[in-house]
Amino acid sequence: MRIVIALGGNALLNPARKNSYPGYLQTVRTSCQGLANLAKKHELIITHGNGPQVGDIMLQQEKAKTLRLPLDVDVAETQGQIGYLLQQGLHNAWPKANVVCLLNQVLVDKNDSAFRHPSKPVGPFYTPRQAHELKGRYHLKKIGQQYRRVVPSPQPKEIIELGIISSLAKSHIVIACGGGGIPVVREKGIVKGVEAVIDKDLTACLLAKSLHADLLLILTDTEGVYLNYGTAKQKLLRQLKVREAQRLLQAGQFPDGSMGPKVRAAMDFAATGRQAVIAHLTDLAKAVNGKAGTSIK
Amino acid sequence: MRIVIALGGNALLNPARKNSYPGYLQTVRTSCQGLANLAKKHELIITHGNGPQVGDIMLQQEKAKTLRLPLDVDVAETQGQIGYLLQQGLHNAWPKANVVCLLNQVLVDKNDSAFRHPSKPVGPFYTPRQAHELKGRYHLKKIGQQYRRVVPSPQPKEIIELGIISSLAKSHIVIACGGGGIPVVREKGIVKGVEAVIDKDLTACLLAKSLHADLLLILTDTEGVYLNYGTAKQKLLRQLKVREAQRLLQAGQFPDGSMGPKVRAAMDFAATGRQAVIAHLTDLAKAVNGKAGTSIK
Repeated sequence: MRIVIALGGNALLNPARKNSYPGYLQTVRTSCQGLANLAKKHELIITHGNGPQVGDIMLQQEKAKTLRLPLDVDVAETQGQIGYLLQQGLHNAWPKANVVCLLNQVLVDKNDSAFRHPSKPVGPFYTPRQAHELKGRYHLKKIGQQYRRVVPSPQPKEIIELGIISSLAKSHIVIACGGGGIPVVREKGIVKGVEAVIDKDLTACLLAKSLHADLLLILTDTEGVYLNYGTAKQKLLRQLKVREAQRLLQAGQFPDGSMGPKVRAAMDFAATGRQAVIAHLTDLAKAVNGKAGTSIK
Repeated sequence: MRIVIALGGNALLNPARKNSYPGYLQTVRTSCQGLANLAKKHELIITHGNGPQVGDIMLQQEKAKTLRLPLDVDVAETQGQIGYLLQQGLHNAWPKANVVCLLNQVLVDKNDSAFRHPSKPVGPFYTPRQAHELKGRYHLKKIGQQYRRVVPSPQPKEIIELGIISSLAKSHIVIACGGGGIPVVREKGIVKGVEAVIDKDLTACLLAKSLHADLLLILTDTEGVYLNYGTAKQKLLRQLKVREAQRLLQAGQFPDGSMGPKVRAAMDFAATGRQAVIAHLTDLAKAVNGKAGTSIK
C-alpha cells in the first residue's frame, strides 16, 4: 500500500511543553519507531503540522528585533526543524532505509476568499495596548481579553514539487509538505510566498489524492473522532460514512480549530473511494489495520 | 561539468541588513538567475552558508523564552529558510528545471579536537553581566568589552544522505547540506545532533569530492583571494597553486574568520587534481570560465 501520513504538530510537541526539548525529541523518536516499522511493509509519504512551532518562531522574531521574515519563510523554517527531527528519527529506527526530507511549496489561489477573510489565529497573544500599536500591520482578532493575529488559510491547490515526491516515494520514506506546505501564489508566471498558512490536513489530502495513495492516515492527540466531544456523553466513532460525517460537521460536532479540518480532509479523500483514518499518534500500527481510530469510507 | 557551488550566508543576506527582507529576497533572486543559466549547461549542486541567519535564530530564541532548541535544530531551520528562498528563486528563473532542496545531516567525529576547544563565535553579543549568568551553560569568549558564545567547529566526515544527493544531481538542480550541514555524531549506531557548527566551505569541499565534481565554486562578497587584504598594498590573486596557497596560509595571509576556510577548502579540493575557484557572488558566470575570481589548482 501507499500511505500518506499526517502527523499533528501539537501531538509531536505537546510533551515538550512540560519537559522541554528532550521530551519533544523523545516523542519524535518513539513515533519514528512506529513509522519505520510500517515503512518495512508499505510506501510512506509523511507530512506534519507546525502550529506551535511556527507560533514560537513568530514570537521569537517579534521579541528579538532581528530581520523580520514573512510567514512563508517561517513555515519553511519549521519544515527544516521538524523535518530534520523526523528524518533523523527514521534513520535511527531503520538505518538501512532511504529517508529523504524535501522542502515543498504549495500553490494557493490568490483570489481564494480566505485572503479577504483572514481567520486562522497564529503567533503570540497581544495585550489591548500592543494590539493598538499593531493595527494596520496585522489583522487582529479579540480572543477573551487579548488579541491575536489572524492570517488567511487558503485551500491548497497544487504541490509545486509533486513530481519529485512521486518519483522518490517508490524507493524512499519521503517527508514532504511540512506545515501544510510553504504557501505560494503564481502571478504572471512567477511563484512567490504569501502571508498565509495552509491547513496541513487539507494538504495531506491533496498529497494523498495527487499520489494516488491507498490510505490517508491523520495522526493526532485524541483516539479518533468523537461524538459530543468534551461532554459526559462523548463517544468515539469507529466507522464513519462520508454522508454521516457531512451531517455531523454541519451540526457543529467538529469545530474548526480542532477536529473540523481533519474530518473535512478525511471526507474529501474518502470520496475517491479509498479509506482515511483519524487516530492517536501512538496507535499508528493498529490504525492501519483498522483496530484503532475512526475510519472514514 | 558537475559543479558544486557554495554560496556565502553573508553574501546572500548583507543587502538585507540595510534594506530588510525585500533586499534579501532580491539578492537571492538575482543570484538564482545566474545559477539557473549555469544549470542549463552543467550539473549543479548548490550549498550555502548560514552565519548571520543562524545567529538571528539563536538571538530570537534567547529573547523569546520559547522552547530552547539546540544548535543542530537551529541549523536545520536555516536549511529551511535559505533552501526555500533558493528553491523558489531557481524555479522562477527557470520554471522547467527540476529543483529539489534536501535537508542534510553531516557526520562529525565526536573525538574531534574541536569539541575540547570550541572556537567558533555564534549568536548574540553579551554584556559582562549577562556573560556571568551564562557561565557554565555556554563557552564564552571575550571580544572587546563584550562576550560571545563559542561552539565547536569540527571537520565534516560524511554526508548521511549522500546517496540521494548523488542520484538526484543527474536530473535536478540540487540544494543540499546548507549551513555546512546539520552536525551529528554516531554513537552506538545512533545518529544524534550536537551543539556545533560545521564550516560550510569544508562541507562544500567534502560534497565536491564525494560527488566527483569537476569544479568547486566558492562564492562570497569579495572578488577573490587577496594578498595583504585590507591594506594599501592589497592585490587580487587570479591564480594560486596549492603549494603557494599553503605558504600564504601559514604566513597568516588568510584569517580564520574570513578567507582562511575558503582557501583551505579550495586547496583540499584542488589536491584531487581538479579546480576550485573563489569569486564574488555576482561574478558566477565569469568565474566558471576563469574570467573572474581566484583559481586554485
